[in-house]
Amino acid sequence: MNCIFPGRFQPFHKGHLYAIGKIKDNCDMLILIVENAGESFTFENPFTAGERIEMILGSIEKDEKMLIIPMENIKNNAEWVRHLKVMLPRFELCYSNNPLVRILMEEEGIRVEGIDFYERQRYSGTEIRKRIALGQEWKELVPNFVYDYIKGNGLEKRIRSLYGDRR
Amino acid sequence: MNCIFPGRFQPFHKGHLYAIGKIKDNCDMLILIVENAGESFTFENPFTAGERIEMILGSIEKDEKMLIIPMENIKNNAEWVRHLKVMLPRFELCYSNNPLVRILMEEEGIRVEGIDFYERQRYSGTEIRKRIALGQEWKELVPNFVYDYIKGNGLEKRIRSLYGDRR
Amino acid sequence: MNCIFPGRFQPFHKGHLYAIGKIKDNCDMLILIVENAGESFTFENPFTAGERIEMILGSIEKDEKMLIIPMENIKNNAEWVRHLKVMLPRFELCYSNNPLVRILMEEEGIRVEGIDFYERQRYSGTEIRKRIALGQEWKELVPNFVYDYIKGNGLEKRIRSLYGDRR
Amino acid sequence: MNCIFPGRFQPFHKGHLYAIGKIKDNCDMLILIVENAGESFTFENPFTAGERIEMILGSIEKDEKMLIIPMENIKNNAEWVRHLKVMLPRFELCYSNNPLVRILMEEEGIRVEGIDFYERQRYSGTEIRKRIALGQEWKELVPNFVYDYIKGNGLEKRIRSLYGDRR
Amino acid sequence: MNCIFPGRFQPFHKGHLYAIGKIKDNCDMLILIVENAGESFTFENPFTAGERIEMILGSIEKDEKMLIIPMENIKNNAEWVRHLKVMLPRFELCYSNNPLVRILMEEEGIRVEGIDFYERQRYSGTEIRKRIALGQEWKELVPNFVYDYIKGNGLEKRIRSLYGDRR
Amino acid sequence: MNCIFPGRFQPFHKGHLYAIGKIKDNCDMLILIVENAGESFTFENPFTAGERIEMILGSIEKDEKMLIIPMENIKNNAEWVRHLKVMLPRFELCYSNNPLVRILMEEEGIRVEGIDFYERQRYSGTEIRKRIALGQEWKELVPNFVYDYIKGNGLEKRIRSLYGDRR
Repeated sequence: MNCIFPGRFQPFHKGHLYAIGKIKDNCDMLILIVENAGESFTFENPFTAGERIEMILGSIEKDEKMLIIPMENIKNNAEWVRHLKVMLPRFELCYSNNPLVRILMEEEGIRVEGIDFYERQRYSGTEIRKRIALGQEWKELVPNFVYDYIKGNGLEKRIRSLYGDRR
Repeated sequence: MNCIFPGRFQPFHKGHLYAIGKIKDNCDMLILIVENAGESFTFENPFTAGERIEMILGSIEKDEKMLIIPMENIKNNAEWVRHLKVMLPRFELCYSNNPLVRILMEEEGIRVEGIDFYERQRYSGTEIRKRIALGQEWKELVPNFVYDYIKGNGLEKRIRSLYGDRR
Repeated sequence: MNCIFPGRFQPFHKGHLYAIGKIKDNCDMLILIVENAGESFTFENPFTAGERIEMILGSIEKDEKMLIIPMENIKNNAEWVRHLKVMLPRFELCYSNNPLVRILMEEEGIRVEGIDFYERQRYSGTEIRKRIALGQEWKELVPNFVYDYIKGNGLEKRIRSLYGDRR
Repeated sequence: MNCIFPGRFQPFHKGHLYAIGKIKDNCDMLILIVENAGESFTFENPFTAGERIEMILGSIEKDEKMLIIPMENIKNNAEWVRHLKVMLPRFELCYSNNPLVRILMEEEGIRVEGIDFYERQRYSGTEIRKRIALGQEWKELVPNFVYDYIKGNGLEKRIRSLYGDRR
Repeated sequence: MNCIFPGRFQPFHKGHLYAIGKIKDNCDMLILIVENAGESFTFENPFTAGERIEMILGSIEKDEKMLIIPMENIKNNAEWVRHLKVMLPRFELCYSNNPLVRILMEEEGIRVEGIDFYERQRYSGTEIRKRIALGQEWKELVPNFVYDYIKGNGLEKRIRSLYGDRR
Repeated sequence: MNCIFPGRFQPFHKGHLYAIGKIKDNCDMLILIVENAGESFTFENPFTAGERIEMILGSIEKDEKMLIIPMENIKNNAEWVRHLKVMLPRFELCYSNNPLVRILMEEEGIRVEGIDFYERQRYSGTEIRKRIALGQEWKELVPNFVYDYIKGNGLEKRIRSLYGDRR
């Protein structure tokens, strides 16, 4: 069975890693969809698609049955699933906890399974970005590679600049 | 060294396969860019991005150091390389024989190497689509998987409908 | 005189119905513009353009002098009226209570008349969506057809999913 | 049964009129889709969507079971039918002679029936535009209303300017 | 040295005028970028690009070394500086106080200098639009030409209509 | 009187220079519109908007009454003049020999005057690009600055690469 796992991965954190570990063996192919790929340098989406893919690649054991695909948002939600079907290899299952994603997928005949996230409150991109912006501790929430990547490339500064400020 | 190999793969043929075999070992990561991903059901681009990815996946020995990324065209060529840099992991080398690609890449500091295609005249998407449209022999030009995929999904008919006809 | 009546119709309610009844006889042609046609599955615009047209068609006595046209939003408000002029049959009068619509129309020589809405506070799409989301009574605010359509197609669930949640 | 009849109607001619007469009684609702609505003032698409709707309205006996909807083209053909489903009331049948339209519709479960056009060679938009450009006779090919509309609004001049010339 | 000074100029005020006076002599060419040029008739961006250029032209001593260029926003911030480089003459310096602009420019090798705004709190477009909306005094905050332009063209009414109301 | 002079300026040549010399004194303000600003690195539009502006600035005596504005194409020709009105300062006269431009402008109340080009056959962007591609003489057709600019920046090579080849 081919599965998709859509997420913004802003940034990729231990909750994602944990989820992938749980679902991977159920899938013949697992497609990570990097959503909002066309947005970056905003507080909600600070990292480019390229940076997010790099953080994912550095954190997982990628194998031959995994695809990582950046996808730009489309305007009309009602056309989103069809768009995915056109752009991706055939898939039968979608992992997501988002109720809108569930409705959209099921309308087009794609089964949806919830993700058993690990301590959802803490392991969340929103929480991590907030902690970085406020100078709080965030190291334990992400894989070591992601921590080093953000630190090493000076990306904390970007998030702080974006916090409460927009071009 | 991270490398990109952009192509439309309409369809993926033995020339592509041969080229990947030659360049793969030079790359720490090899990113196949499925260009014109937002176009399909035209004679130039009959297959969707999803179909093209399926044909590639069935034909190559995918390994953990290869990415396959569909990319929609952007309007202004002068902004294309920057767009790739934003959407993809860092890359240093581009494999392409296209003189425009060479110019655009070199302007942005990316080295370009030509591809030593095997019998370029025959192993070409244009040639294959023409043969399919005219009912000529094309089996030997593509990997077995691609031949079976196009045959098995009735896609020859699509190409014939598109030949000399457009919505 | 040809008239336009722009609205989002999320959903079509008795206020709309009442307004159409009042203005219809003043018009040689009445064009209902289904605005934001390119947006759906959001809390502000839960229904697709197609669903909205179906709800309108089931609720009114359509006659030969009425057109129903879905229109996607355009980016620059200053170009909106010209866009309508290009996409629609000639019109001389716009029914709207929106002050921005009034300014934009009058700048391009289109007369605007206010709509004598019936109990504006209750008969409002915003109010109806809120009631559906919160499980309150909303039946009396819409034509019977609209009530049955939303109930019968399970669309209350969509609105509840969208309430306070977005993809 | 709800039916769609897509066409560019550049301009609306007797072939269209004849076709509508033949198919109308098979349909509970007949939706004329004015395609390429976002293009005008080109030789292929000289008339705006609004002008085309006016020519249709003046030529047919519009009744309560007919809709006329301008639709802008979308980029990816593979997403076109889904787009129509989102923007229009439900439909089960498409009238078209275009082989690509047939393939796209049938992939999404929409039945297609050919149109029994009357003297297809002469009653064609391409032929009419060419005749207007070259100053040849074209009156007999269109409904009287269309002839008077184009003559009365000085639109022959537009077509001649566009012939062999583009901004 | 060629310099850019990006701003929305909604409207052009004395702070802008003061800043231009200070930076002009450092520049061989000074390019005023009228940002968000594709947005108008919103409370954040009430004036069209054309109106803003007119207000600038009436307020400054334009000379042969100044360019005024309207620029529409692009979606992905990470591609913004490249877009400017493609659309504008070469530039080496950007005047801006915006931390995001600083990050984006410096990533692409453009030096950024802060603007020594005069009484930033009062001389601000946000403040001026608010005062106009609320009927407060705003004359002293803008050049005489801008005051007369807004008054003379009845544009106060537009801002009031847009305040707390949107199409 | 404010005047516009739209052109692609691929490249700016002596015909343009001559025309500007003739029309400049009739204008209170002269706005050069660099059309197709969003296209570059194609054979029809090899130079970016920025490069074209640089070539213009180096060739004319710019004065305080001249504006140079890059404009991206819009899809629907019928909305083009309105778009210009929104993006530019008010203008009353358009200099152009293009019959489509004439029709579009006059429909929106803008007067059009033809340009008395000097030896139109030779002084043409198409001719110059062709000569560069084929290695023929082209120096005398452009201002010295443009010749040196193209030579000095190695842009002949770009045009040759684009001739008969596209990404």
